Amino acid sequence: MSLLNALEWRYATKKMNGAVVPQDKLNFILKATQLSASSFGLQPYTILVISNPELKAKLQPHAYNQSQIVDCSHLLVFAAWTSVSEKQVDDFIANAAATRNLPVSALQDFRNYVWGAVSRLDAATQQAWASKQVYIALGTALAAAGEVEVDATPMEGFVPAEFDEVLGLKEKGLASVALLPLGFRSEDDWLSKLAKVRRSADELFQIIE
Amino acid sequence: MSLLNALEWRYATKKMNGAVVPQDKLNFILKATQLSASSFGLQPYTILVISNPELKAKLQPHAYNQSQIVDCSHLLVFAAWTSVSEKQVDDFIANAAATRNLPVSALQDFRNYVWGAVSRLDAATQQAWASKQVYIALGTALAAAGEVEVDATPMEGFVPAEFDEVLGLKEKGLASVALLPLGFRSEDDWLSKLAKVRRSADELFQIIE
Repeated sequence: MSLLNALEWRYATKKMNGAVVPQDKLNFILKATQLSASSFGLQPYTILVISNPELKAKLQPHAYNQSQIVDCSHLLVFAAWTSVSEKQVDDFIANAAATRNLPVSALQDFRNYVWGAVSRLDAATQQAWASKQVYIALGTALAAAGEVEVDATPMEGFVPAEFDEVLGLKEKGLASVALLPLGFRSEDDWLSKLAKVRRSADELFQIIE
Repeated sequence: MSLLNALEWRYATKKMNGAVVPQDKLNFILKATQLSASSFGLQPYTILVISNPELKAKLQPHAYNQSQIVDCSHLLVFAAWTSVSEKQVDDFIANAAATRNLPVSALQDFRNYVWGAVSRLDAATQQAWASKQVYIALGTALAAAGEVEVDATPMEGFVPAEFDEVLGLKEKGLASVALLPLGFRSEDDWLSKLAKVRRSADELFQIIE
């Protein structure tokens, strides 16, 4: 499906039918998410891809018992880094050097620039900044899911601290930020029949020529 | 271009050539951005679309003199609402009712739910939340630009307070959050020749089956 059609087609699915997302469609969505932009290209987050039924059931009460948590095929949990360590920046630089077939020393200035910019922020600000990068990836994942006609529900309606506890995220330096159940809409999802609501272009954009 | 190809093709363009983005491509990018998801569908932001050369030149020093600000065709300034008012929620509900051909009264419960959720946050938290919604739109705009082979540079490297001052955003209840110059890469942009760096799927995703 073309991007505009995909964006028109998609909606925040309220009721899913439990069908499994085929591996090739899941791979497409994950690949697009992996290619998503981020500040410096650091990608300061981990994305959990949960299809285990017991774990989904365990998580559901921590998302106000919303049905998509268990009726989805795969539950994506976007978890931001709670802080950025010098090692994480060094790993990023090592990956950049390897990808570009350069010695790490050739990226020393860039490394110092990134670490300088990040280390001057306190941990709370680093996490807020990492969380914003997550939302770029979320936007990319939503577009990708639409293109392959997989339904998805971007969700902030859950208790992050409880998700972090169940998933053992804190020990890994991660904090859950947003959820994206992937699956297929149920025929009787009331929201699927309603027209999409968006602010008009006149209100949303301010054109300065 | 297909989405994955578009995401592979795009990069954070460091040097643009000054060429103008045709109106149909600009419209495509703006339409995709308008269709972008947001919490409740509220779209708590305004996007400035600046092609005026004098204004771009005036803004450049407030973005560390980066050349894309003036060499782009259109500079998108994503500005989040600094707080959410009851009137903004009511306008959103009125738009939803009109779009869905319903009386406003039919959306009263939803209206109270949205306003209840938002009004319990302090202004700083509302702005942080609105800023995250901006990043979904930014992700959508990046994918859309790639699809029509328009280059784009997602930028946090500017001084938001100074942009707000020049653009008179504060008086409008807006705060600039991210920039997205749109244009075309210069042939001699050093970054355009380098391989894209991304964390491996093994590192980025945690699969729980």
